Amino acid sequence: MLGKIALEEAFALPRFEEKTRWWASLFATDPDTHTKEITDINKIRIDFADKHGVGYQILSYTAPGVQDIWDPTEAQALAVEINDYIAEQIKDKPDRFGAFATLSMHNPQEAAAELRRCVEKYGFKGALVNDTQRAGPDGDAMIFYDNADWDIFWKTCTDLSVPLYLHPRNPTGTIYDKLWADRKWLIGPPLSFAQGVSLHALGMVTNGVFDRHPDLQIILGHLGEHIPFDMWRINHWFEDRKKQLGLAETCKKTIREYFARNFWITTSGHFSTTTLNFCMAEVGADRILFSIDYPFETFGDACEWFDAAELNLVDKAKIGRENAKRLFRLGAYKDSEA
Amino acid sequence: MLGKIALEEAFALPRFEEKTRWWASLFATDPDTHTKEITDINKIRIDFADKHGVGYQILSYTAPGVQDIWDPTEAQALAVEINDYIAEQIKDKPDRFGAFATLSMHNPQEAAAELRRCVEKYGFKGALVNDTQRAGPDGDAMIFYDNADWDIFWKTCTDLSVPLYLHPRNPTGTIYDKLWADRKWLIGPPLSFAQGVSLHALGMVTNGVFDRHPDLQIILGHLGEHIPFDMWRINHWFEDRKKQLGLAETCKKTIREYFARNFWITTSGHFSTTTLNFCMAEVGADRILFSIDYPFETFGDACEWFDAAELNLVDKAKIGRENAKRLFRLGAYKDSEA
Amino acid sequence: MLGKIALEEAFALPRFEEKTRWWASLFATDPDTHTKEITDINKIRIDFADKHGVGYQILSYTAPGVQDIWDPTEAQALAVEINDYIAEQIKDKPDRFGAFATLSMHNPQEAAAELRRCVEKYGFKGALVNDTQRAGPDGDAMIFYDNADWDIFWKTCTDLSVPLYLHPRNPTGTIYDKLWADRKWLIGPPLSFAQGVSLHALGMVTNGVFDRHPDLQIILGHLGEHIPFDMWRINHWFEDRKKQLGLAETCKKTIREYFARNFWITTSGHFSTTTLNFCMAEVGADRILFSIDYPFETFGDACEWFDAAELNLVDKAKIGRENAKRLFRLGAYKDSEA
Amino acid sequence: MLGKIALEEAFALPRFEEKTRWWASLFATDPDTHTKEITDINKIRIDFADKHGVGYQILSYTAPGVQDIWDPTEAQALAVEINDYIAEQIKDKPDRFGAFATLSMHNPQEAAAELRRCVEKYGFKGALVNDTQRAGPDGDAMIFYDNADWDIFWKTCTDLSVPLYLHPRNPTGTIYDKLWADRKWLIGPPLSFAQGVSLHALGMVTNGVFDRHPDLQIILGHLGEHIPFDMWRINHWFEDRKKQLGLAETCKKTIREYFARNFWITTSGHFSTTTLNFCMAEVGADRILFSIDYPFETFGDACEWFDAAELNLVDKAKIGRENAKRLFRLGAYKDSEA
Repeated sequence: MLGKIALEEAFALPRFEEKTRWWASLFATDPDTHTKEITDINKIRIDFADKHGVGYQILSYTAPGVQDIWDPTEAQALAVEINDYIAEQIKDKPDRFGAFATLSMHNPQEAAAELRRCVEKYGFKGALVNDTQRAGPDGDAMIFYDNADWDIFWKTCTDLSVPLYLHPRNPTGTIYDKLWADRKWLIGPPLSFAQGVSLHALGMVTNGVFDRHPDLQIILGHLGEHIPFDMWRINHWFEDRKKQLGLAETCKKTIREYFARNFWITTSGHFSTTTLNFCMAEVGADRILFSIDYPFETFGDACEWFDAAELNLVDKAKIGRENAKRLFRLGAYKDSEA
Repeated sequence: MLGKIALEEAFALPRFEEKTRWWASLFATDPDTHTKEITDINKIRIDFADKHGVGYQILSYTAPGVQDIWDPTEAQALAVEINDYIAEQIKDKPDRFGAFATLSMHNPQEAAAELRRCVEKYGFKGALVNDTQRAGPDGDAMIFYDNADWDIFWKTCTDLSVPLYLHPRNPTGTIYDKLWADRKWLIGPPLSFAQGVSLHALGMVTNGVFDRHPDLQIILGHLGEHIPFDMWRINHWFEDRKKQLGLAETCKKTIREYFARNFWITTSGHFSTTTLNFCMAEVGADRILFSIDYPFETFGDACEWFDAAELNLVDKAKIGRENAKRLFRLGAYKDSEA
Repeated sequence: MLGKIALEEAFALPRFEEKTRWWASLFATDPDTHTKEITDINKIRIDFADKHGVGYQILSYTAPGVQDIWDPTEAQALAVEINDYIAEQIKDKPDRFGAFATLSMHNPQEAAAELRRCVEKYGFKGALVNDTQRAGPDGDAMIFYDNADWDIFWKTCTDLSVPLYLHPRNPTGTIYDKLWADRKWLIGPPLSFAQGVSLHALGMVTNGVFDRHPDLQIILGHLGEHIPFDMWRINHWFEDRKKQLGLAETCKKTIREYFARNFWITTSGHFSTTTLNFCMAEVGADRILFSIDYPFETFGDACEWFDAAELNLVDKAKIGRENAKRLFRLGAYKDSEA
Repeated sequence: MLGKIALEEAFALPRFEEKTRWWASLFATDPDTHTKEITDINKIRIDFADKHGVGYQILSYTAPGVQDIWDPTEAQALAVEINDYIAEQIKDKPDRFGAFATLSMHNPQEAAAELRRCVEKYGFKGALVNDTQRAGPDGDAMIFYDNADWDIFWKTCTDLSVPLYLHPRNPTGTIYDKLWADRKWLIGPPLSFAQGVSLHALGMVTNGVFDRHPDLQIILGHLGEHIPFDMWRINHWFEDRKKQLGLAETCKKTIREYFARNFWITTSGHFSTTTLNFCMAEVGADRILFSIDYPFETFGDACEWFDAAELNLVDKAKIGRENAKRLFRLGAYKDSEA
């Protein structure tokens, strides 16, 4: 399929190249190639896109990024630097690249202001945030965005009509020591990523973020980070005990309703037709978006899978491109397919 | 369907009735009824079973139970008391009831010995353990069973040819404070249960428990606690990077192979045909077992769903009864169906 | 779900009541009730709809109807009578009832003219035709609508922007004697209906009707009458051998493309969530429409199934109502649901 | 996957080579290659099998074959010739080849006797019959095997404990003229094959063959020739109206029960994981068998699909090999896989 749109696509700053290579050495099969791919914007990425029928990509700063910086001033400075950098890099290819704002999430007002700047000045398509913000004097605290303090931020998202992509971050601090240190192979895609994001996203649901911001749009990668699998179970428990649990005040709709109105899921790093079919039943093809997770995943793995997947053409076009055009108002974007 | 077998079915000790009622008040829609149901063994439970076509039940002590007691001596004493109690209670109905041993998991040798006693003396069908063992002077430590210290215990399981049911436990201590305190509605079935058990079960996989004990059989409730949903993603990450990650030494098979040889999943608390169909694809009907999670779930919800579920009859018989007969060697058990 | 729309809903003429009762005696569990239900328009039907959350119904003349009359003059007279009758019956309830035109299919021009009259004079929503038209001196011939003679008719459908529902008819004549006489239990819903309609619909595909009328919209009942099940197989055979078979000239698109552009399927008489989920993968939720097939099926069976079906809310709304509103331009129709 | 077993694999007699090439010219993309492939037994076929991990194949005479010969004497002579020929061809490779008997189906006693001869003398694994037997003075009659005349034949199958593969045949005679002549592209895999076999198989069900022969095992190709798709609908219609229809006498079980006890389906020519997953829900993995339909389909298409299909390993082993070993009692067959 030509003209696919992908939206969990990472880049890194060139000035961190050495750090990027060290980081890559922890998981990548070829750290040098990974470092080149994630640092490049305009060459390798476009070649892969052309080869594999990707028309448009929304880029975002790699994790661990600003959410890993527990000094608020340093975090904010880096976020601004990243946003200015990527805006400059992609400005000549508006038909091929968009960007998600990188945000320091230490302070809701500051995050909201930087998001507004990026959308209004640069036309960014929303923001991508790496789960909780590391904070505290030694970086062991975790800021969640699911309490009322963050209403100003979510209101800015809906005022600007842009979605937020809630992306995973590696566990750190006490949580790391208690749960993950002795089972390090589960950090990342196999388990910890989905556990972190599922908790945060469902925390937003149960703490009333979507009741207070009914138009807020949140994107989850990896086919929804475990939540679609438990849709029935979550719904059953909540609806049976909503009154008893005291949940009825903050969370007036059902989990299925929040997924129908406020969530989108992407295929990033989860190239399984069986699971996609299941998600089409539990979430619906209108809310599923193709993505790759490049360069942690390859264009080849993602695109060859999707192009060959046994799907009806209506949903394939939606998932591959049309839903993203609708969500990001990419009407001007001309895909290469009739 | 008549003659169904159910195996995540909880009881509590009568002497804790008051504590049970207080606990039930935190989540149950009717705490008094819940307290009666969980304390009863031979009357209410049999009536429900007769009404809903359940032939045989394997009972286990409710959570939080012994895994919540951080004093090792107290934990062991309670485990022995519970095992002696339930053995006495069910001894006249061998065609209707079996039991899983309750174990203190402070010490592998002690746990192994009590399991052996229960199987050899009472004919128990295995053990059910509530995730990690709470430990340490203030109960903030968590003992996982996924390192080599526990080999003696796992060897005992395979020597006795009995499975272990890895059941959830509520988060406690630091983990509770950091992750769950501000999103309390996610504790239990909606999220925390599956996150805890998935971590523990996959920790056993990656830390090599199944390579060292290839015949070990582990049962997971709730249709597999998120793992089937990520089967492709886990497999993809591990197999692509096994060598790079250093995982190749402890974890020689693929995640799909461990699920084909070492895991069983039950329908407890997850009465969704769409999800069950997905699990039939990802795990296979031979390794799926009907269960209820009574009295946290009702016989009615579980059995009416299962009896009406659109499944082929071969797999319905397997999931409802035949797989359990095979796993627990219940050949003598005569179901009521031709 | 309130405000559901149903569109394979049959009525009979009151003057044929005796014949209707005799016919019902061949298959209905209660012929008298069936006769009352199919003859009624405004009372029983509305009561059922109110009870089961059906907001709008598109009515059509029952089979065997005009397609079973091999005298062309008689067939046309009856079609006109039926159309005038139902227009009169439903005219006071435009928010509850629409109708499909009944057509004699002996002559394309005549069929086109009657369709135009019904749409322009009465606001009918399209036509429902019972598979092939019985013809010939003794009724043993079968007229298919898949050759170029029928272009004038299909052009009228697209000019008027109305769909045609291709509904089954019982086998008659030689075909009956050869195939069905000795296996009479397979006549109707179990097999013959789907075999007839599948042949006719795929005949239209391969004989080029949709290449000549790319905007033509055809509705198939019973979740697509076997075709979705073979989507892969049909596509594989045609695309591998299109040139070799000589099919490339009349049938330029793939079977998946015709299903994405020209076909809709309904749930009439096929209340299976497992099959519906499969069709959501192979056909797509955007092209699936709720329907009952009343009074051959009950409102209760159809609506209780659909209302309880485990589906995401976006697709449930589409299938239950929104797709029909789009296809039939029912913007003015106010469903009862927020 | 190594050691796969395939069982809808066709051969032709060398003496018909010219006729085979003419026939191939009607549908094959490369008639010469097709002719070589279908005429070969021991060379090309083994090379493909080795390349694609097929351990064992059960060969059968291609269609149209003996079922297309309306002279009974000629039909019987050809059947015997074919059986003697293939027995000789494969006798040196018992670990790679088995055969299904080819049978003239003009006379039940004769068919039974030839089946017995093939099983007892040559160790054939059952029979493969191409739908109805063409008969009558001009070949326009069709013999079905679903009435009581054929009890002697079915009794022989169960006495010998061998299954019958009910394979499609092209429509001929009046049926051809009436239904298929003007929509020739639907003859074969796209539609006519499945329509013929579905009718015959369901005729056997409703005419009581399985009630009289409860151990009879019938194999259907192409994932069950439309029947799994309508399992719910067939079951619903029959069970609602069994008494009313008069079906209760010949057909005491439900359609789901016959599929659980008497039918097997193969993947021949239907290499769709989405459809296979659906069949795993509706028929069950225990009754699904891998097959290719070589040389009408390629080893590559079938095996690359199956080997890459996202399936749990238990069911993949069953469908790929283990079910066939059980059905055909191939215990001695050593697959190449640990």
